[in-house]
Amino acid sequence: MGGCIGFDGRTVSAETGEAYRKAAVEKKGTLWMQGDLTEAFWTDRPKMPCAPFFILSEQYSGKSTADKLADIRNEMKEAGADVHLLSSLCDIAWILNVRGNDITHVPVVLSYLAVTMRECIWFLREEMITKEQRAYLEENHVATRPYEAIDAYIASLNAGAVLYDGETLNMKLAASIPKGVQVILGHNPSEWQKAIKNPVETEHIKRAHIKDGVAFTKFMYWLKTRIASEEITEISASDYLLKRRQEQEHFLDVSFDTICAYGEHAAMMHYAASKETDARLKPEGFLLVDSGGHYLEGTTDITRTLALGAVTQEMKRHFTAVVRGNLNLASAKFLQGVKGTQLDVLARKPIWDLGLDYRCGTGHGVGYLLNVHEGPNAFRYKQREGAEDLTVLKEGMVTTDEPGIYLEGAYGIRIENELLCQKAEETEYGQFLCFETITYAPIDLDAVDASELTEREKMQLNAYHQKVYKMLAPFLTEEEAEWLKGYTREL
Amino acid sequence: MGGCIGFDGRTVSAETGEAYRKAAVEKKGTLWMQGDLTEAFWTDRPKMPCAPFFILSEQYSGKSTADKLADIRNEMKEAGADVHLLSSLCDIAWILNVRGNDITHVPVVLSYLAVTMRECIWFLREEMITKEQRAYLEENHVATRPYEAIDAYIASLNAGAVLYDGETLNMKLAASIPKGVQVILGHNPSEWQKAIKNPVETEHIKRAHIKDGVAFTKFMYWLKTRIASEEITEISASDYLLKRRQEQEHFLDVSFDTICAYGEHAAMMHYAASKETDARLKPEGFLLVDSGGHYLEGTTDITRTLALGAVTQEMKRHFTAVVRGNLNLASAKFLQGVKGTQLDVLARKPIWDLGLDYRCGTGHGVGYLLNVHEGPNAFRYKQREGAEDLTVLKEGMVTTDEPGIYLEGAYGIRIENELLCQKAEETEYGQFLCFETITYAPIDLDAVDASELTEREKMQLNAYHQKVYKMLAPFLTEEEAEWLKGYTREL
Repeated sequence: MGGCIGFDGRTVSAETGEAYRKAAVEKKGTLWMQGDLTEAFWTDRPKMPCAPFFILSEQYSGKSTADKLADIRNEMKEAGADVHLLSSLCDIAWILNVRGNDITHVPVVLSYLAVTMRECIWFLREEMITKEQRAYLEENHVATRPYEAIDAYIASLNAGAVLYDGETLNMKLAASIPKGVQVILGHNPSEWQKAIKNPVETEHIKRAHIKDGVAFTKFMYWLKTRIASEEITEISASDYLLKRRQEQEHFLDVSFDTICAYGEHAAMMHYAASKETDARLKPEGFLLVDSGGHYLEGTTDITRTLALGAVTQEMKRHFTAVVRGNLNLASAKFLQGVKGTQLDVLARKPIWDLGLDYRCGTGHGVGYLLNVHEGPNAFRYKQREGAEDLTVLKEGMVTTDEPGIYLEGAYGIRIENELLCQKAEETEYGQFLCFETITYAPIDLDAVDASELTEREKMQLNAYHQKVYKMLAPFLTEEEAEWLKGYTREL
Repeated sequence: MGGCIGFDGRTVSAETGEAYRKAAVEKKGTLWMQGDLTEAFWTDRPKMPCAPFFILSEQYSGKSTADKLADIRNEMKEAGADVHLLSSLCDIAWILNVRGNDITHVPVVLSYLAVTMRECIWFLREEMITKEQRAYLEENHVATRPYEAIDAYIASLNAGAVLYDGETLNMKLAASIPKGVQVILGHNPSEWQKAIKNPVETEHIKRAHIKDGVAFTKFMYWLKTRIASEEITEISASDYLLKRRQEQEHFLDVSFDTICAYGEHAAMMHYAASKETDARLKPEGFLLVDSGGHYLEGTTDITRTLALGAVTQEMKRHFTAVVRGNLNLASAKFLQGVKGTQLDVLARKPIWDLGLDYRCGTGHGVGYLLNVHEGPNAFRYKQREGAEDLTVLKEGMVTTDEPGIYLEGAYGIRIENELLCQKAEETEYGQFLCFETITYAPIDLDAVDASELTEREKMQLNAYHQKVYKMLAPFLTEEEAEWLKGYTREL
């Protein structure tokens, strides 16, 4: 009984903070959330990032900030909200069509946003705004204020209703909303809007994937042809892949730290090679490479597992089960309204058939030059008890398809493509949706046991490989293209 | 504003009644639910049924009423309930191990049940209780009172907490619970308990399915060999099938009105032949037969679609897609915790692939000598917005697997087997579950296009047919068995 729960209210979501408050009230305790206790003694703490940002032109975003704000205001009206507060940086970057560099591999700007029916106020380090950017913001009727002014802004609210997402707005802001103001808890309207990529975005994303596929395929060619003769390690392989990406036009950054995991390292689902663990690659076994890039044309996320030499029949059986899971989900055609939690089993079935499983979802949404993990779309079968299932699939969503098998102490296999949700035919039964696979890189046929594939799966894999060759060959050297022909051969 | 919503509170669930009350309150109106307005002028109304009932011995039920009551009281304790009220007749029949005849094809006894920590009171027409039944009830500490005494019983409750299921308890009873009594809304503990069949029940159910399969296979043999030469109609075929079931030991009743639908009639999902519609069967096209029986050993539900003669390539393609959907769901192996709403897509995928769908769930739970439709287990992909998803699959559940294709004005195809959920292996990933198909009758190979089946599906269908032959042949005539050999041949 009694006591006090202390935390930095800026780093805890309103939802979590409210759970703390409830716990405190039950025990007749109190909350303290005014700051960060480490500030007093962490003297050499790095400054808060304040990197320059850039405007993502409509040529890439496909929709002006003015139009996005109009859509958000429509949803605010429906919800009866006068003010909409956001501290979720990806939403803010998407709404304002700006990209920054304040968080490693997530190109966002540390800031807050307040949208009313007449105003849109961006709270950020104003000193970094250039003259051109100022003009752009004014053109879109976006005002700016200092980052810290958000506190005074919220304190000054004195009537009406505020809409915010308790899962993303921080507790300090939520708790400082004055008493007389009505709170409407709901998802950020921009969450759905940005998950559904517009036609301009999807066209660009496909281009980004061709570039990314070219980079990956050059890497795979190099690795497959040099592994027997050159000294290559997890880190040097990663570096080689990074260089191939950097050669691509409009490449900005990797979208996350590359996972380049050899042998048993790959059984750790999020292994990161360090100097201490960096393994020398041998011409045998599996190398798992999970990587991606940020391009002006969008963000990519691809995993391939490569046989560096001989693999056992058991390894082929596992590899082929993962391929089948990947293909089966990608080939789904389904009626509008179906959820990612309902299609997940298609990817998992061939793996469950072996008494195996992977302890994660099958896939996640991907941002457009934003977070490589984006909601609400996802493929998974587990659902938090009582949680809302928001994984309804909609035309324009991009979701990864990445089943795997991970055997501790032995190896890990994952094959990841991105799927663009598209309209299929409309029949008397309703509107069907399907997926277009937009990741282009060979699935290593050296590890496929073709006898385990159904005829349909073979046709599907052949068609995919044919497309990979067609998309990538024009950007490869003659030797690489010749090699790719072999690795995209018909089964 | 104002006004009064009137209904018979005995025929409306508490949940629905509360929705009416809310609607009335909002409009400043009132509720009237004291009776049935038709009573005043419906003078030749049939009396309330009061058929004799019988005791389902432990040899069939596998669990005594005393043991079932002990389990229910444990759940009551956990919920903090002193009294548990039931008006759901299947639950009452299951708890008391009695079966009656008050509702067509649902062998239950019109009654109420009240369970406290020390008492179990059954409210029914006491006059029908025999001496032996009285002794049985006393042995299990079940007291009886007149059917109408439930009202006085509820009015006499004066403290403690009452647990009931608002979806099944009727509104009149719920509304008459005195003010001082706490209400705990929850599922009937018996809902889950009866859905999970015990080992004695499952052994019996398998036996019931062999008998039912023998009856159906004799019918199919007769139809296939006579269709070209005899005058057979939907109704006469139904009658023939009923006779074959009646020949089986311990057959009590059909479990629902047989659907015997020829050609375009089968496109109506719940067609019932009448004298006016009774179609003459010709040696061509599809006949859909959905039927089932109540046996002492349990309840069955089987659908077969039979090619009565030539069928087009398109019809074969549709038939084969339905077969594939049926087989794919039946072959699922999955981790504990997976829901029927997540496996549904396995049955639907081959049908969605054709741009087709069926406008219903893929399957429902089946009672043990009770309602042929029983919850909470089911296969479906649609979920009422905001409704709890209770379709988690558990060992011992029996659920139908009945995908279909229905083309208006042309034909309907449905193939329905019952699946018994069983434990498969336990691995480091958890406990796997799988299904045993417990319905035994040939799937008409005359309508299967084997080239559309994968090798796995062919093996699965062959293995199923081999089992059908092995289970049924001993109970068939030599001619029938010979014929069955052909219809269960290897593809």
